[in-house]
Amino acid sequence: MILIDVYVNVNIESPAIRTRSALNPAAFEPRNPDYAARTRESFERQAAMRTLGATLAQVLPGQVVITLPWSEPLTQQHGFLHAGMVATALDSACGYAGFTLMPAEAAVLTIEFKINLLAPAQGEHFRMVGTVIKPGRTVTVCEGQAWAIDGGQERLVATMGCTLMAVIGREHIQG
Amino acid sequence: MILIDVYVNVNIESPAIRTRSALNPAAFEPRNPDYAARTRESFERQAAMRTLGATLAQVLPGQVVITLPWSEPLTQQHGFLHAGMVATALDSACGYAGFTLMPAEAAVLTIEFKINLLAPAQGEHFRMVGTVIKPGRTVTVCEGQAWAIDGGQERLVATMGCTLMAVIGREHIQG
Amino acid sequence: MILIDVYVNVNIESPAIRTRSALNPAAFEPRNPDYAARTRESFERQAAMRTLGATLAQVLPGQVVITLPWSEPLTQQHGFLHAGMVATALDSACGYAGFTLMPAEAAVLTIEFKINLLAPAQGEHFRMVGTVIKPGRTVTVCEGQAWAIDGGQERLVATMGCTLMAVIGREHIQG
Amino acid sequence: MILIDVYVNVNIESPAIRTRSALNPAAFEPRNPDYAARTRESFERQAAMRTLGATLAQVLPGQVVITLPWSEPLTQQHGFLHAGMVATALDSACGYAGFTLMPAEAAVLTIEFKINLLAPAQGEHFRMVGTVIKPGRTVTVCEGQAWAIDGGQERLVATMGCTLMAVIGREHIQG
Repeated sequence: MILIDVYVNVNIESPAIRTRSALNPAAFEPRNPDYAARTRESFERQAAMRTLGATLAQVLPGQVVITLPWSEPLTQQHGFLHAGMVATALDSACGYAGFTLMPAEAAVLTIEFKINLLAPAQGEHFRMVGTVIKPGRTVTVCEGQAWAIDGGQERLVATMGCTLMAVIGREHIQG
Repeated sequence: MILIDVYVNVNIESPAIRTRSALNPAAFEPRNPDYAARTRESFERQAAMRTLGATLAQVLPGQVVITLPWSEPLTQQHGFLHAGMVATALDSACGYAGFTLMPAEAAVLTIEFKINLLAPAQGEHFRMVGTVIKPGRTVTVCEGQAWAIDGGQERLVATMGCTLMAVIGREHIQG
Repeated sequence: MILIDVYVNVNIESPAIRTRSALNPAAFEPRNPDYAARTRESFERQAAMRTLGATLAQVLPGQVVITLPWSEPLTQQHGFLHAGMVATALDSACGYAGFTLMPAEAAVLTIEFKINLLAPAQGEHFRMVGTVIKPGRTVTVCEGQAWAIDGGQERLVATMGCTLMAVIGREHIQG
Repeated sequence: MILIDVYVNVNIESPAIRTRSALNPAAFEPRNPDYAARTRESFERQAAMRTLGATLAQVLPGQVVITLPWSEPLTQQHGFLHAGMVATALDSACGYAGFTLMPAEAAVLTIEFKINLLAPAQGEHFRMVGTVIKPGRTVTVCEGQAWAIDGGQERLVATMGCTLMAVIGREHIQG
């Protein structure tokens, strides 16, 4: 018996869905077979991630998921996660998504990012998903999505567009 | 024999795909039953769309597709579509995507947009897809994707994040 | 006796300089005479600012300055301030710059921001300057600049463009 | 006789004004002495600038000014300049501002830009000012400002943040 529960819309005509093929993590071939260990090692060195209480939940070629619980030290004046703290976790998710596809000698720096706050970042937990849209030798473009999880429900609270640079051969900037 | 060629990734666990449900145009309920006619009428009044040779190819609740052919007057110094011309078509696709969900008395203005140019905009035709991510009473957030079509092949050449405002009751700003 | 009151714009030829008149904080008239106390009170409620070790250094109508020292818990993998932490302080500087011009009953929320990282955020101290470019009843646009201070030298390390919304009459969102 | 050569406003207290020194075009040293001729020659090849009726009004090291008259083919549905057309002219102003500082063998491509629309783009003429904030070997960051001129009055209608890439040695991408 074959049970297929395709709950996304597989209409080949729909441009919104065709887009997803570009986002399919499986489509990316890492240039560094050690990409996952290397990403985890760099994440461990980000003190900011400890400050956030963040966990590296998933590392795929071109996609990284970071999770964190709500915590008072990260909030703004209304008790929501501060937009900048959401951005901090999303920037790391995007940056490491790009990093998984970079060669072993490259470090990653963020050139710029833009974040849209769609809803107040309230919830028990947050899941930040960074996905490579277009990898490049020097410049890589990623997309991020911040999800708030509350009572088992997920809500999209922010989206990010992020541009990264692979930095090679600069002392003090490794990994 | 059953042949299933699901070329989008149907892994229920993958957050990248779950996201798509948020982008499913069918999820949006237009507040104005006349949304399509109203969108087409406003598009007709955009002289800039005639300058681009653009066609309103599809109008769904929360999603609009605009197509245009390559044309020399729209190019930059290397013969690609000028980034600003790509942005012009994408901004209209996003703006009208938002417009489809606004009440009948609202006009739409762009607050801001950001565009990432992923590849040179070269091709025979271009397809600009604007999709609502988060509709709102005052502020609506959209995403746009620019596809270049060349020899039957599609390539993602730009992505846009766009914030719109519904303007109500301002003379000279209608539709 | 010669009295020279050079307020702004002395070189009619230079567009870069004329721009500054729009950024002149003195040009803005706060609608709430209590704007400074109100801003300080809201800043105190941002737990994220304590996490950053940030101080509200200056509150003018339409311009806010936040300072913070370098601190290890805010860093990324190379020992620089994490781009998201720079963004957190800049977003608060921009948000409160806008807040100074809002009426007494309004709360402020960030709709979106974009940050360009110009140089690694290394230094002893950082100064984040948020300035209103265009105040509005609903939507306010600000600009932010992050300066790193090292050995008495200042260096521009990031710029931000930020869009805010004045929120009125929503329970749980005050100040 | 009184000679007053006030270049920028030198109030040491105001951070907004100190910033301006970073934007002082005189601070940039072009690597290509032919920068102006090269910029004008590339501008001439941008068919999109002819479509806009745009003129290259000023070329300085790190700053370029483009002017254009209002014209119906560039408008959106309310008769204002389409946001994308404003972006087209601003993107060229920013792109060429960066180009003036690039070496003779480099071509320039836009990585991304973000535009905030501050006011409807209505006026007789428009002046687009692109200024380099941070030049770099590979990546250059610029800022743009769009001014509407009406009855002798200038109004800031849009601001842009723009990231450029210097492209060297790619066939078909020259100038």
